[in-house]
Amino acid sequence: MKRIADSTVRRLSLYLRFLEEFEEAGLTTVSSEELAARGGTTSAQVRKDLSFFGSFGKRGLGYSVNELTQRMRRILGLDRDWRIIIVGVGKIGAALAQYEGFRQRGFRVVALYDSDPGKVGRQIDGLTVRATDDLAEDNRERPVDIAVIAVPAEAAQRVVDQVIGAGIIGIMSFAPIQLHVPAEVTLNTVNMAMELERLSFALSNRE
Amino acid sequence: MKRIADSTVRRLSLYLRFLEEFEEAGLTTVSSEELAARGGTTSAQVRKDLSFFGSFGKRGLGYSVNELTQRMRRILGLDRDWRIIIVGVGKIGAALAQYEGFRQRGFRVVALYDSDPGKVGRQIDGLTVRATDDLAEDNRERPVDIAVIAVPAEAAQRVVDQVIGAGIIGIMSFAPIQLHVPAEVTLNTVNMAMELERLSFALSNRE
Repeated sequence: MKRIADSTVRRLSLYLRFLEEFEEAGLTTVSSEELAARGGTTSAQVRKDLSFFGSFGKRGLGYSVNELTQRMRRILGLDRDWRIIIVGVGKIGAALAQYEGFRQRGFRVVALYDSDPGKVGRQIDGLTVRATDDLAEDNRERPVDIAVIAVPAEAAQRVVDQVIGAGIIGIMSFAPIQLHVPAEVTLNTVNMAMELERLSFALSNRE
Repeated sequence: MKRIADSTVRRLSLYLRFLEEFEEAGLTTVSSEELAARGGTTSAQVRKDLSFFGSFGKRGLGYSVNELTQRMRRILGLDRDWRIIIVGVGKIGAALAQYEGFRQRGFRVVALYDSDPGKVGRQIDGLTVRATDDLAEDNRERPVDIAVIAVPAEAAQRVVDQVIGAGIIGIMSFAPIQLHVPAEVTLNTVNMAMELERLSFALSNRE
């Protein structure tokens, strides 16, 4: 498959959300124009985005909402459960552990870790916080798919190295720092301050 | 100014971070190749990104780290303070209220709001939680720049309408729902589950 741009994947995620709304509203077919209108984009863009993944829909008849929903889920890897762990149960980590949106999408938080002995053993949302040093052994026994990193910037690279050493190849980081990972590891960084910068940029550069 | 793509703004934010690291390391000049290597992109991309904002650097001499840092800050709107409020002090909202990264970038959380009478009056990080209904009057007295929305999905559109009604035109939303805002309002949505979907997509579509 061709390399898909990040912005395309973001739009696919949005399309899936719209499709689910359409499904809930009882619609059975949808046109690329309708999807485009809902997402603030063009129908040509919608067709181009979908064309990466083979042929969808029938000319003039639009897409079957049900079929397209299923295929979007499969494309995004949402036709299965993902076992995720959260490393670092400070404020952000603890909030993420209880985030409803993850469960709804099949992202199951199966374990929490922290290196602070004062936090190890604590209960959060039905899970007992474990020591980060137990990660490698835990992952040998019951492998997980994704590690969410919610530790301070200065600890992040060390923790990420530990996570990778334990054999986990999917990483989502909330640490406000650029991390280095080997090519076989997939890393997605969410930086809250950078999200605010997108807004300060837009507000500063208004017409 | 031309419409700048979101992916460009994200890269500018990254360049600024690298420049700050270079500055801390005592470097005085940097080439587009060095910036590109640090950011996993190409030097042509770096030059193209920067060219949107006028001419930088001297051919063959690279960029002045100090000058480029200052101009990046100005471009991103970081040469000033931004007054932000957080609406909804559940787990995510309370975590954001205490997020260090905001303050470091000049995003000052000046007030917290919640519509739950059980939360109004509570102290979080030195701020007293106020009633969401006070927002309009508060904003008349001391206007803010950005409202961060951290309420449940089903309340989000109502709260956003209230925020816009109060005269706030910059919105960052963490609610997992598509919001509708008038053209003069700048909205940035951060959806945690969508961030995980970018990862499940990448992990599902590995070579």
